[in-house]
Amino acid sequence: MLLTDGNSIGLEMHSRLTSLYPICRSITGNGVRQTLAALQTTIPLEIHEVPTGTQVFDWTVPNEWNIQDAWIKNCAGERIVDFKKHSLHVLNYSKPMHAKMPFAELKAHLHTLPAQPDAIPYKTSYYKEDWGFCLSHNALLEMREEHYEVCIDSSLTPGSLSYGEFLLPGHLSNEVLFSAHVCHPSLANDNLSGIVIAAELAAMLSTTARRYSYRFLFVPGTIGAITWLALNEANAQRIQYGLVLSGLGDLGQLTYKRSRQASAAIDRAVVSVLSNSGAPYAVQDFSPYGYDERQFCSPGFNLPVGRLSRTPYGTYAQYHTSLDNPDFVKPAALADSLHVLLKIVATIEANELYLNTNPKCEPQLGKRGLYNELTDAGDTMAMLWLLNLSDGQNSLLDIAERAALPFNSICRVANVLESHGLLCRA
Amino acid sequence: MLLTDGNSIGLEMHSRLTSLYPICRSITGNGVRQTLAALQTTIPLEIHEVPTGTQVFDWTVPNEWNIQDAWIKNCAGERIVDFKKHSLHVLNYSKPMHAKMPFAELKAHLHTLPAQPDAIPYKTSYYKEDWGFCLSHNALLEMREEHYEVCIDSSLTPGSLSYGEFLLPGHLSNEVLFSAHVCHPSLANDNLSGIVIAAELAAMLSTTARRYSYRFLFVPGTIGAITWLALNEANAQRIQYGLVLSGLGDLGQLTYKRSRQASAAIDRAVVSVLSNSGAPYAVQDFSPYGYDERQFCSPGFNLPVGRLSRTPYGTYAQYHTSLDNPDFVKPAALADSLHVLLKIVATIEANELYLNTNPKCEPQLGKRGLYNELTDAGDTMAMLWLLNLSDGQNSLLDIAERAALPFNSICRVANVLESHGLLCRA
Amino acid sequence: MLLTDGNSIGLEMHSRLTSLYPICRSITGNGVRQTLAALQTTIPLEIHEVPTGTQVFDWTVPNEWNIQDAWIKNCAGERIVDFKKHSLHVLNYSKPMHAKMPFAELKAHLHTLPAQPDAIPYKTSYYKEDWGFCLSHNALLEMREEHYEVCIDSSLTPGSLSYGEFLLPGHLSNEVLFSAHVCHPSLANDNLSGIVIAAELAAMLSTTARRYSYRFLFVPGTIGAITWLALNEANAQRIQYGLVLSGLGDLGQLTYKRSRQASAAIDRAVVSVLSNSGAPYAVQDFSPYGYDERQFCSPGFNLPVGRLSRTPYGTYAQYHTSLDNPDFVKPAALADSLHVLLKIVATIEANELYLNTNPKCEPQLGKRGLYNELTDAGDTMAMLWLLNLSDGQNSLLDIAERAALPFNSICRVANVLESHGLLCRA
Repeated sequence: MLLTDGNSIGLEMHSRLTSLYPICRSITGNGVRQTLAALQTTIPLEIHEVPTGTQVFDWTVPNEWNIQDAWIKNCAGERIVDFKKHSLHVLNYSKPMHAKMPFAELKAHLHTLPAQPDAIPYKTSYYKEDWGFCLSHNALLEMREEHYEVCIDSSLTPGSLSYGEFLLPGHLSNEVLFSAHVCHPSLANDNLSGIVIAAELAAMLSTTARRYSYRFLFVPGTIGAITWLALNEANAQRIQYGLVLSGLGDLGQLTYKRSRQASAAIDRAVVSVLSNSGAPYAVQDFSPYGYDERQFCSPGFNLPVGRLSRTPYGTYAQYHTSLDNPDFVKPAALADSLHVLLKIVATIEANELYLNTNPKCEPQLGKRGLYNELTDAGDTMAMLWLLNLSDGQNSLLDIAERAALPFNSICRVANVLESHGLLCRA
Repeated sequence: MLLTDGNSIGLEMHSRLTSLYPICRSITGNGVRQTLAALQTTIPLEIHEVPTGTQVFDWTVPNEWNIQDAWIKNCAGERIVDFKKHSLHVLNYSKPMHAKMPFAELKAHLHTLPAQPDAIPYKTSYYKEDWGFCLSHNALLEMREEHYEVCIDSSLTPGSLSYGEFLLPGHLSNEVLFSAHVCHPSLANDNLSGIVIAAELAAMLSTTARRYSYRFLFVPGTIGAITWLALNEANAQRIQYGLVLSGLGDLGQLTYKRSRQASAAIDRAVVSVLSNSGAPYAVQDFSPYGYDERQFCSPGFNLPVGRLSRTPYGTYAQYHTSLDNPDFVKPAALADSLHVLLKIVATIEANELYLNTNPKCEPQLGKRGLYNELTDAGDTMAMLWLLNLSDGQNSLLDIAERAALPFNSICRVANVLESHGLLCRA
Repeated sequence: MLLTDGNSIGLEMHSRLTSLYPICRSITGNGVRQTLAALQTTIPLEIHEVPTGTQVFDWTVPNEWNIQDAWIKNCAGERIVDFKKHSLHVLNYSKPMHAKMPFAELKAHLHTLPAQPDAIPYKTSYYKEDWGFCLSHNALLEMREEHYEVCIDSSLTPGSLSYGEFLLPGHLSNEVLFSAHVCHPSLANDNLSGIVIAAELAAMLSTTARRYSYRFLFVPGTIGAITWLALNEANAQRIQYGLVLSGLGDLGQLTYKRSRQASAAIDRAVVSVLSNSGAPYAVQDFSPYGYDERQFCSPGFNLPVGRLSRTPYGTYAQYHTSLDNPDFVKPAALADSLHVLLKIVATIEANELYLNTNPKCEPQLGKRGLYNELTDAGDTMAMLWLLNLSDGQNSLLDIAERAALPFNSICRVANVLESHGLLCRA
């Protein structure tokens, strides 16, 4: 599949991202539901609700958090911090509260970034009941020793955890997994970029023939991935390739973080695509810190799941602040990320394991007209390598690596050899 | 075995090569038979005839090609291209033909090398019926827009494919294979050099004690090797070391191409000899292009067969032209190649797997007088390494590599330890 | 265990070494017995006596050698070489003799070091009956063409080979071995340094809780190690870590020689300690030459036994001469070697194999207060790596290596995770 009009798809994804940006998401609650509902306009997403209190491995699905409003008013009754202006203003998952208190008492609940005085930080308190506000450091400096009225009109009550799932069945029941986290409120690159790209990729793949089945997950970070794994242990075993998608909309180079297995087929497929892309890129070894690859790569699962990002999280100034807004994400970067993902999918789809049907000596290529049919530079070598290495041990990616020939050439020639009955699928 | 008089053996091999040079060989026919018959003066070669039409894996033994004469006459009746002057003048395997035609029509059947205007190229058309002439580009430039009489007095008829085989039985039924291709017409380095060296090596080995059995094949390229493998599958399984010999008479450094197994015993033996030779050399990784190692290393056989050459084919200007003539091949180069092959054979013969008969603690070397018997620098270390590593996992080549001691020292000391009962053959 | 007062322990070890220095040890006899008896003031050493003639693998326990006196008198009756002044003066294991002879005859029995004219060399003749004297080259130059009276008042008679052994049982029957050779006469670094350090280490470990059992051997070189192995084959199989200790008192950097297994747990433990010590150090690959690691690493045992030294034997000028005296050994070097050995022991003790009790997804660390309990930089990463890699394949040393975190941090965090039930011992 080619990205025939990257420009318009980039703009479209950016527009969807912009419309999702204001929603106040969290690990549970209506913000996630609204986001998943919006994605249903792109793909027929199945929405799951897992009740509060459900045990998922070592964790318990927490109460549902919903919020209508939150503000700090000064003694003049003016809202000096207003959740309606930015969802980051409230400490995510804050318990409800309404009180008047002196600045000295309030201050302990105010979060700012002194080094980035114009930015509102993103803070959460998921598993420890707390309340608080986030604001720019400059706004804090304007506050005085007076009494403030503080209100968080939220609720923390039994409900459910929501996540979205979309399975595209393929010829094989073996699966390729794409997972994006949906728990971050008004943050554009992290991870609305991953969400809109995953949805677009799913939409595009839904219209094509597929060898593998493709599963797309839109889950709250950590607890959502754990919930899905706990409820889908059997499905998880079918995953042969997987990618966590996050931070794919900034202008930095693509960064691939290897799976725990380090050189699983997903690792080799992504590195093959990136190294043939002509663009700069980075590859990181696995570490147990990061996004939901932590769960997919836990030792009891050890799935072949890597992570694709552009600039790694935590290494750009906008990360987890109000500066990670739709302006920071570029349509061209979204389109480029999608484009590379399509190439990764194409590689996965094409990465067959073939058997040479005439393994003893070379078959006679001339009598089949193969020297006339395959005339590109490198085609003869691709033919000979394919026949020599298709012994049931080497996939097309393996052969391309050993032959030092482009994967695309190896695939094209493999198809021709298969059509002549010289290779068959293992 | 030592090459006591390399000079005279080099001259003798060169003289045999010179007498074989004029014969017009091909993949079938009397040229091959004459060549094999001439080799019978050196070794008692067994000559096999495999009938046209015999199925050999994916291939069929083709018609037999024989040729008496071929020429182009100008309108004055003068032979301006004359097969009797050089066997390369005819497109090898040309079908019979006799006609008059204008230059414009003839031209499509004339092959030259514009970049080497004095050289006649070597061209074949084995598996596609065709006819043609090869000539120097300067000769082509002298031809005019006139009618030419063209004659190829050849025949392409059912007959047989001929190949030569010589087996020297040894103490073991396991075999060492040497294979040379015999299908090239008047070309000296490629591969009369390989042919005369293989024959001389066979003659020399026939007079010595042998641990391994040695099989020498003189086969037409590709179809001959495939034919032998198809008719000798059981024998092929006995091959524990193998070398394709080609292009061994030029003055370039020796070049070893590894087997598909990459670090089989043959690969380690050849690299050991070359690296201890003091002369420059090159080692190439396996690739599925080349000479008959393509067949021996096909995935259904995957035999430990490498290739020994001097300057690799295709990288010298004389390659596949009339410039690859007896002058291009030097007696000293032939002798040096033979000398190295004798060292490789000696390494193979000596590469035993021993067991330490006293594996628990060191044996008492002093009471056996070993410190007096073995007094060369390095002998004590060779003794200790041999005793320490002869655990059934390490051959003498392995031990020499890990000890970083010359293979010859390791072998000499191993023999002394064996004579004292401290090592026994595994 | 910490070396709280390295200075005083260094001085104490040096004082013990100085008192052991004058004793004339050999592979058998009273010199070894006196040495072992002296060690019994530090540790309750068990002393074994193995009778002359006992067959130990390929060797036989030799006669016992004892010596009372040895001298050369000039014609004036003056002792010009006197064993009572230095035990090195006699060729170790010299047979008894008393004769007058001209200088020309005597000369063949005199050993000197012309390049180090002030030093007395150390020479032995264990397995070939001989007699001789060692003296400084300057002393030799003063001798004249006259008759000398020569006396060696020794005995070579059936008796026994003595060695010392001390086993500290631990929670596990698996053993950690420390071995030092006790056959060298008046030589301080080689190997009184190893002897006093091994004894001190044993004394210190005897007062601590131990996971492993610890076995200390004080054996004559070669024949003593062979004797122990022959009589303790079953015990040898329990050795999971081992070190030969020798040359640990000079001021050079520590040098570790790997076991034959090359990357056994002992190799990784020592390299981990040395590389985290901040001091320069060297690591050598295994070779079958050296001290008693030759026997422990013979192919029939192949035990995980390396060797710890400071400057390697044979590479310092004092080696095997009268210059290797107590002045050459420094208290600080003894203390540093002991200190590093204690760190190696601590690493061995701590190098557990854990299992993550919640291998599917991450356990919830927050609800257990772990983020509050573990607050050092790197603790979160240590937790995540421990949970991710504790799959039964990776010891704590493996995890520290892959996480690139200090072994100590990994251990500390592992203990905390174990106390919360998140890790259990495999």
